[in-house]
Amino acid sequence: MQWKITETNQVDPTATDRMGNKFLIGNGYIGYRGTLEEYGKDQKTATIVCGLYDKVGELWREPVNLPNGCFLQCISQDERLHAQNSRVLEHEQGLNLYQAVHERKTTFETASGAHITIRARRFASLARLPLICMEITLQADRDCQLTLQTGIDGDVWDLNGPHLRDITSSEQDGIISLSAVTHENGVPVAVSEMATFAMGTQSIIKGEKNILRAIQVPVRSNQACILYKFVAHATGLDSTDPLADSQRACREAAVLGFDRLMAEHCTLWAQRWAACDIQIEGDEPAQEALRFSMYALLAIAPVHADAVSIPARGLSGQVYKGAIFWDTEIFMLPFFSCAFPAIARNLLMYRYHTLEGARRKAREYGFRGAFYAWESQDGGEDACTLFNVTDVFTNRPLRTYFRDKQVHISADIVYAIWQYFTITGDQTIWADGGAEVVFECARFYLSYTYFNPDKQRYEILDVTGPDEYHERVHNNFFTNLMVAHTLSVCRDVAAYLQAQSPEKFRDLMASLDFEHDLSLIRQVSENIFLPVGEAAVDLAGVIPQFDGFFKLENISLPSLLERKLHPHEYLGGGNGLATTTQIIKQADVILALYLFKERYRVEIKSANWEYYEPRTEHGSTLSACSYSMVAAQIGKVDWAYRYFMKTATIDLTGEGKEYVGTLYIGGTHPAGNGGAWMAAIFGLCGISWEGQTLSIAPRLPTHWIQVTFPLVFQGQKLRLRLSNESVCVQIVEALETPLFISVEGAVQPLPLTGELSIPLVKERPG
Amino acid sequence: MQWKITETNQVDPTATDRMGNKFLIGNGYIGYRGTLEEYGKDQKTATIVCGLYDKVGELWREPVNLPNGCFLQCISQDERLHAQNSRVLEHEQGLNLYQAVHERKTTFETASGAHITIRARRFASLARLPLICMEITLQADRDCQLTLQTGIDGDVWDLNGPHLRDITSSEQDGIISLSAVTHENGVPVAVSEMATFAMGTQSIIKGEKNILRAIQVPVRSNQACILYKFVAHATGLDSTDPLADSQRACREAAVLGFDRLMAEHCTLWAQRWAACDIQIEGDEPAQEALRFSMYALLAIAPVHADAVSIPARGLSGQVYKGAIFWDTEIFMLPFFSCAFPAIARNLLMYRYHTLEGARRKAREYGFRGAFYAWESQDGGEDACTLFNVTDVFTNRPLRTYFRDKQVHISADIVYAIWQYFTITGDQTIWADGGAEVVFECARFYLSYTYFNPDKQRYEILDVTGPDEYHERVHNNFFTNLMVAHTLSVCRDVAAYLQAQSPEKFRDLMASLDFEHDLSLIRQVSENIFLPVGEAAVDLAGVIPQFDGFFKLENISLPSLLERKLHPHEYLGGGNGLATTTQIIKQADVILALYLFKERYRVEIKSANWEYYEPRTEHGSTLSACSYSMVAAQIGKVDWAYRYFMKTATIDLTGEGKEYVGTLYIGGTHPAGNGGAWMAAIFGLCGISWEGQTLSIAPRLPTHWIQVTFPLVFQGQKLRLRLSNESVCVQIVEALETPLFISVEGAVQPLPLTGELSIPLVKERPG
Repeated sequence: MQWKITETNQVDPTATDRMGNKFLIGNGYIGYRGTLEEYGKDQKTATIVCGLYDKVGELWREPVNLPNGCFLQCISQDERLHAQNSRVLEHEQGLNLYQAVHERKTTFETASGAHITIRARRFASLARLPLICMEITLQADRDCQLTLQTGIDGDVWDLNGPHLRDITSSEQDGIISLSAVTHENGVPVAVSEMATFAMGTQSIIKGEKNILRAIQVPVRSNQACILYKFVAHATGLDSTDPLADSQRACREAAVLGFDRLMAEHCTLWAQRWAACDIQIEGDEPAQEALRFSMYALLAIAPVHADAVSIPARGLSGQVYKGAIFWDTEIFMLPFFSCAFPAIARNLLMYRYHTLEGARRKAREYGFRGAFYAWESQDGGEDACTLFNVTDVFTNRPLRTYFRDKQVHISADIVYAIWQYFTITGDQTIWADGGAEVVFECARFYLSYTYFNPDKQRYEILDVTGPDEYHERVHNNFFTNLMVAHTLSVCRDVAAYLQAQSPEKFRDLMASLDFEHDLSLIRQVSENIFLPVGEAAVDLAGVIPQFDGFFKLENISLPSLLERKLHPHEYLGGGNGLATTTQIIKQADVILALYLFKERYRVEIKSANWEYYEPRTEHGSTLSACSYSMVAAQIGKVDWAYRYFMKTATIDLTGEGKEYVGTLYIGGTHPAGNGGAWMAAIFGLCGISWEGQTLSIAPRLPTHWIQVTFPLVFQGQKLRLRLSNESVCVQIVEALETPLFISVEGAVQPLPLTGELSIPLVKERPG
Repeated sequence: MQWKITETNQVDPTATDRMGNKFLIGNGYIGYRGTLEEYGKDQKTATIVCGLYDKVGELWREPVNLPNGCFLQCISQDERLHAQNSRVLEHEQGLNLYQAVHERKTTFETASGAHITIRARRFASLARLPLICMEITLQADRDCQLTLQTGIDGDVWDLNGPHLRDITSSEQDGIISLSAVTHENGVPVAVSEMATFAMGTQSIIKGEKNILRAIQVPVRSNQACILYKFVAHATGLDSTDPLADSQRACREAAVLGFDRLMAEHCTLWAQRWAACDIQIEGDEPAQEALRFSMYALLAIAPVHADAVSIPARGLSGQVYKGAIFWDTEIFMLPFFSCAFPAIARNLLMYRYHTLEGARRKAREYGFRGAFYAWESQDGGEDACTLFNVTDVFTNRPLRTYFRDKQVHISADIVYAIWQYFTITGDQTIWADGGAEVVFECARFYLSYTYFNPDKQRYEILDVTGPDEYHERVHNNFFTNLMVAHTLSVCRDVAAYLQAQSPEKFRDLMASLDFEHDLSLIRQVSENIFLPVGEAAVDLAGVIPQFDGFFKLENISLPSLLERKLHPHEYLGGGNGLATTTQIIKQADVILALYLFKERYRVEIKSANWEYYEPRTEHGSTLSACSYSMVAAQIGKVDWAYRYFMKTATIDLTGEGKEYVGTLYIGGTHPAGNGGAWMAAIFGLCGISWEGQTLSIAPRLPTHWIQVTFPLVFQGQKLRLRLSNESVCVQIVEALETPLFISVEGAVQPLPLTGELSIPLVKERPG
């Protein structure tokens, strides 16, 4: 079983960003980029703490990068051993996914010919969230005296910083600390470090922005010297005295020691893997990529709070302002809902806690209800600026309409809550805030929708759909479908809450003054315009992405790209090359067809997939998985597999876009990670559900022998084993409520215990 | 009395375009640019025939520039005397506005020291439309032998040509001709020339694209030699044999002779001036500019047909595709309606004749009724492309929304018909097509309008108002007001036609299937959303140009212009500098306040004028006159005068924009000419009307002693003499129906004959 991912000799500076993303460790509270111990701001070292934002002057508000407590520099006779500058004989860097431990091993040759090997392991403790634990092992091929500079480096990488002021260093009982406060709100932060080592002498060096220990270590030939570092982080978000709290955490860690800390950490990760691991027989690359994807999601999933969520670039830096996008609800949530319902609930509750911000945004634009932020930070404020891209030709900010017009975000949230509810059966979500969110989102659309008297239908005008290359369009199929769904869910939730908690329902209706709107919603929801597939022979069944889409220039993607005059020029915005063509950034109609897969026939899905696939740039990581899932449904398993692998390997290969206009957008792609899981489970494994019935329709690649994975459905633990020949459902714990299984159109009850195997006989579609 | 406008020594190539525009002659059938006789394509010589368009390949469809029959080159001993290349001692070029005659006089010094003077006069005969008549006088300070090359130059200036193929030259009975056919539709065209002269010998030279006579003229010292040229034009639009017809016209002209031709031409122009001339005592520059403006309009007004109209650049070339814009209806029509009702009717009938094209355009965009072309050519086809500007930074075409979103054009036409009707009282216009145009325009808006259920009102979404720097806005005040007016006029016209011609009404209702729509129009017209002035203290009474206007960046015009990186960069479009600011191209709210001046109080007009004036770039000639008229109404006479003069002198000074992006847009500005008339009569003289009552409220600049002008109101001829102290109305022909006059709020009947003088006593506003 393959749990380690490793890269060798990737010390070239051009690989640094990729390594930093790929080998990130985290526990949802902090994320630490996969940089090497001796790296600094130029190598984009970053310790991102979840939910802490700061704004400097008129620059973008973004996450705070804490001082780097994991810093360690080995010096041999004034020669600073640095993977990028020194002579490296051998280098290996990687992750143990099972343990969530980062590992590196580098052998340097010094100017004097000595071979010095540095090994380091580190993990962000899942048992003690503020803590990163490190073990550093030094070895040399001859006796030598080495100096280790280790401590806290406060001179950090920032996109729109610096965010920390009043940086103060201190030392107490062998613990060194760096304290500071953020610019905007003066939130105190502290990082403390405790180092333990068997031999050597140390002195403390205080710099303007750092505090380091210089440890003189006498190394004997081929004898390992081990140093442990315990780095604790604390902020004013959850501590009244971050300095003291971080010192205390260091002290406790040092007492427990590395091995015990590692053991408790690994135990928790093992439980995680037991709850979600997918085993693929017959495909090592897919196995690795899928595990990596799940690791990447788990490393950034908030377990400590329900007022935070997962940003679009996870905890890998400050890109996209550390904001939460629809990525979380549509592309990450399904994994959590099916394997870690409690985390899924945390993520959803973030939207309840930010409802007030969504109401403010709706009012700002003259609407009612909840218009959720396109880029949501703490409190639900929309961090998205009106000028979100810089023109490469004039170096001027470009007006974009992400903030104003991507109104589907509220519907995405409703979709996600409803999906969570249908998977988990968690009825408490409605009374705990879910219903209020749904009602307010529905109310927003009620105020956004226009009636076309001439065509006697409601239309959704002037929006931007998922495909951001076409801003300000009318009747975007995806958006209209999502809005209609929101209104319909609103009716269902109202009925449900009224039946289950009549008092809560009455209170909510009264406090929201929702009676009249609810009756309007009933009326409007049936009559939202939904474009249907074209009847024209050459477009039979193809749904226009928005009004007039087929009138746009019908150019091939390569021909469009040939028109580019600058490698980073933005294809959307006011004058972008794609805007006047049928080339789209990402799945739009196809995403809608996945989200509402039960409503559309295979022929319609096929026609649209074939039409839109060659016209899609996949300029967003949200794209490939949608094409994968619909490809699976229409029997194009080869394409389903290809797009699955594209999604699953995005942070392994580092092939994502790094620039839009002059804007740096690099980082990890958790939506891609979540999309990989969806493509595997919902796409290739063909999992879907309705009520108490789980449907399974495997469309596995032919080289996949068997796939095994756990699933929590309606709160009950199942284990599935699928091949293209049979489906097996194992009941992990005796069922408490009846569940059903639908395979090849036949529905039957699951046994209360044991397992049920069903052979597959029919031909699959396509 | 000043009737001549002259420029001396303007032979520098940089002045050529301006001269060409300023000194254009025309008779509505053909326009001939004010270039010199020896000029060719490089000097933008052009003979534009009204209503003849051609398209070559994928280039823009535009007017055809006919072969230049007015060409004449004087040669002295192999030295071609050319104002731009030869030694010029003295040069004068000008127009006699009263006669509509172009004059030039140039004294050359040849290499051998001879002084040769060429005088030339030419006019586009108003009595014989295909004809241009020329008189050329040669004089020298010594005996010499000159060669005159005169004839037809088919190598013409084209923006998107060449438009003529199969160019054939011929000679018959002393008449030389060039025939050709247009590219797109193979329309035959012909230009013939006949030259008469007292002495000399001639030979014919045939070139590939020209045919010339070489006339050897023995010139005696200080003795004038005169040559006459008669140039006739004919096209397949109105001739089955253009060659023969042009030859015949030449022959007839030669028989009549220059003097008789000039006499009949001048008689007709004298009648024109009698019908419209405005005499301003106390302001020679204003007098000249206003006369020039009227001349410029009359020179291009179609008198020969009602299926053509006046293009935005008149007959001065191919700019703006020779297309008819709303300029004609809103800015030129008032002059004609008040002085030449028959020409006004011709212009309006063009819209009836192109109704089918407007219906096609509505269908193309998914609407019903008549969506008139933004750039209307023959048949009402919209010549406007979707990419109307070229980006100066990338040299790529920019997507603009003139064609799609400037939906106010249909309402402008309705406004114009209604205005024509209220001025002239011409009741026949409704049954003759006017009602059908109005109904179909109203129907278009019925299908364009959305109902906002939340705000319980109809809204006009996604439009571009007059200010083209802000495309695709919602609830543009101007557009909403115009649409509401269209719907209201539709109701009135329906009622009117039903009362006057019940049978015609029944037929029209049936043929248009208009019963149901008319009832809807009644319902919608009362409930169109009209933004009102802001209540906020710093914006009290200021009407937002469109939804969200005040949220745009509030920058000063000079600061905005400082951001320009390229002198010709387009401020509108997708990313233009103005698009995200409150800087507007031209009068928008202010134009609406002029058009509906009776509906808004002086305080509102003042607040809006003060707000928008500094934010207006006046990047369109349609702008200044609106600011002038509203300035007059709010008592800012100095500003009214300043903007009046700006408008009235646009083609005299040649200060209009020459480029938008990389697009050449030079030419004459008939809307500016019309706007000057409006600013003088409607603005400074304060003329307005309602029913049978003419209101007069002079706000003359203090240095104007008196203004006198004729006016046809309700078909009856009046002559007005106004000062700031009194108003005098002279009844030119005994009244057949009663008329009233309103001065300073007092309404009284006009006498049936004689004149009525009323002293002004009250203070004027402001």
